[in-house]
Amino acid sequence: MPEFSPGLEGVVAAETAVSEVDGANGRLIYRGGYLIEDLAAVATFEEAAYLLWNGELPDKRELDDLRHKMSAARRLKDAARGALTSMDPATDPMDTLRTVVSAQGAAKTLTKPTLDEAIALVAVVPTIVAASHRRQKGLDLVEPRDELGHAANLLWMKEGTEASADRVHWLDTYLVLLADHGLNASTFTARVIASTGSDLTSCVVGAIGALKGPAHGGATYAARTMLDKIGSADNAEAWLQDQHAKHARFPGFGHRVYRTYDPRAKILRELAKAAAPELQKTAEHTEEVALRILHEAHPERPNATNVDFWASVVLTGVGIPKELFTCVFATSRVAGWTAHVLESLTDLRIIRPASIWKGPQPGTKPVPINSR
Amino acid sequence: MPEFSPGLEGVVAAETAVSEVDGANGRLIYRGGYLIEDLAAVATFEEAAYLLWNGELPDKRELDDLRHKMSAARRLKDAARGALTSMDPATDPMDTLRTVVSAQGAAKTLTKPTLDEAIALVAVVPTIVAASHRRQKGLDLVEPRDELGHAANLLWMKEGTEASADRVHWLDTYLVLLADHGLNASTFTARVIASTGSDLTSCVVGAIGALKGPAHGGATYAARTMLDKIGSADNAEAWLQDQHAKHARFPGFGHRVYRTYDPRAKILRELAKAAAPELQKTAEHTEEVALRILHEAHPERPNATNVDFWASVVLTGVGIPKELFTCVFATSRVAGWTAHVLESLTDLRIIRPASIWKGPQPGTKPVPINSR
Repeated sequence: MPEFSPGLEGVVAAETAVSEVDGANGRLIYRGGYLIEDLAAVATFEEAAYLLWNGELPDKRELDDLRHKMSAARRLKDAARGALTSMDPATDPMDTLRTVVSAQGAAKTLTKPTLDEAIALVAVVPTIVAASHRRQKGLDLVEPRDELGHAANLLWMKEGTEASADRVHWLDTYLVLLADHGLNASTFTARVIASTGSDLTSCVVGAIGALKGPAHGGATYAARTMLDKIGSADNAEAWLQDQHAKHARFPGFGHRVYRTYDPRAKILRELAKAAAPELQKTAEHTEEVALRILHEAHPERPNATNVDFWASVVLTGVGIPKELFTCVFATSRVAGWTAHVLESLTDLRIIRPASIWKGPQPGTKPVPINSR
Repeated sequence: MPEFSPGLEGVVAAETAVSEVDGANGRLIYRGGYLIEDLAAVATFEEAAYLLWNGELPDKRELDDLRHKMSAARRLKDAARGALTSMDPATDPMDTLRTVVSAQGAAKTLTKPTLDEAIALVAVVPTIVAASHRRQKGLDLVEPRDELGHAANLLWMKEGTEASADRVHWLDTYLVLLADHGLNASTFTARVIASTGSDLTSCVVGAIGALKGPAHGGATYAARTMLDKIGSADNAEAWLQDQHAKHARFPGFGHRVYRTYDPRAKILRELAKAAAPELQKTAEHTEEVALRILHEAHPERPNATNVDFWASVVLTGVGIPKELFTCVFATSRVAGWTAHVLESLTDLRIIRPASIWKGPQPGTKPVPINSR
């Protein structure tokens, strides 16, 4: 029996051309060989999604075609609308998203995942996220507007007024940055489900459940909560020292793969200055103190800031309440989930690992008496 | 970078005491060290679930307590009922199950999985499966009956009349046999989702999506479909030879782990004689011919009958239509999914494997022009 690597750390689970996390060099490469910083400087979310799905950036006609398909798929089907309106408005928005995506993608027969399905699933997520938010606030739902881009339309449906170009740009950049990231836990979940020959909605619904966890997508919320507790820059030292003394982790710091500064965090750190100047100051000082404390405690460990820390500041600047952070993360990552599933179809082999038995061998206990 | 084992074959992904598939010796061991054949001879599904969750078989008081808890959790909450009734009655029952379980488990805040939640999820699955079936048939839903056991109540809600003791016994045996099976793809899905710190419903919903795949839970349906196409014993040779000539696989044969006869298949094979005598004859001859053809083609391969083949015959005898086979599989396996999630909580480490990059290195293509 081979050795056990907890969390499958360092274990290769797939070959992929969708994205590569080059942790040693702090690089994130998207499909086609683009560095994330090059792409984030120029591409919209729709273009990044097209790239992840197709391997090439779209030309104008291809982009128009994609935007048209996405606009046409933004509305909820009857089953999804029924599921949504049956839910308690106070439900965790991720639970609403999981349920309503499941209803939206429910079908009469099992079909193999297609690109058109991927486009439709990506297109409808903002509708559910915005609806979930407005129901929580007791507001009427806002229908999508066909002529708006993905980021702009999300803010429109959330607020019922058109967002500023700046806010749309910050959100769009966030959506590009978070769209894929190697075999993270939610993407891996999607690939495991796909490996059984299941449908695309099942893959996405499973991935939503994985993203929800605080060790994964939920970390952006945790980072923002930490900043809320710190409150202002001059409280960072005392608060972090207190947490450190209690052996608490600092949300937004450390990553399984990166051994240097997360390239996405670097971009968001810069963006935060314009997007959320007040919170940025607190965050900048918090980062400085946190990195110093972590380095003093574990000089051997790479404890660089991760994407969650600065994403929490930028999303705040965009006007996203922290309760929606994980949902907005899903709005982006669903592009990667679906791209990985479509890629995996070319060589489908069920993902079925082995385990080490930690229980007693048969014969060590008496066989039970028939209770039937 | 370590070697890549497609499908994570032979890669250890967890240590577990919930169950062990001893493929070399054709043994399935449930928690506590019980061989599946010893357990199936004496235990009800409720007892098997208790064992998987707690590590010991229940005494009378503990079993009464579990049955009471399960009876109390059989009814759909408002959100689940709303989601159910909003779905097109022709929806794939697995899609209905995925959606309605998601709605039933939706919560206001994220909580750590508990045994009581596991019990409640296991208890409600038959309600959804039966409702999905009756809606497909245009029939009114039948409310659960508290005094009936898990298997008997499923048949009651499906049919609105009490099933014979024999049918209940066959179904109950099936439910015990299928309740857990090491790190199969759906159980592994549940563990990956749990590893992020997510909630139990998210784990189960993801697992339902994985079980749906034809390479996993969907295989029982495929085995029955094959038997339908063969029709009668005297057609088995011609039909199978034709399929073999076309390089088609025989559903219900072969398994990733077993190198000898699946112990569950052995029990179901025997049960099939009483449960479905007609179909059993066709199946017995089909098995004989299939094993001969497979052995002649690949004498080096272990091509033993798997559980799906004989499960499809026994479930037919129970009166389950093949469209519900995967749902009834989920009714059983949800005990294992939840047991694995609860076990994994003791040492939670995010499951985040590595991948091999198959794309171009950065710098091989020109950086795109700003289209924003």
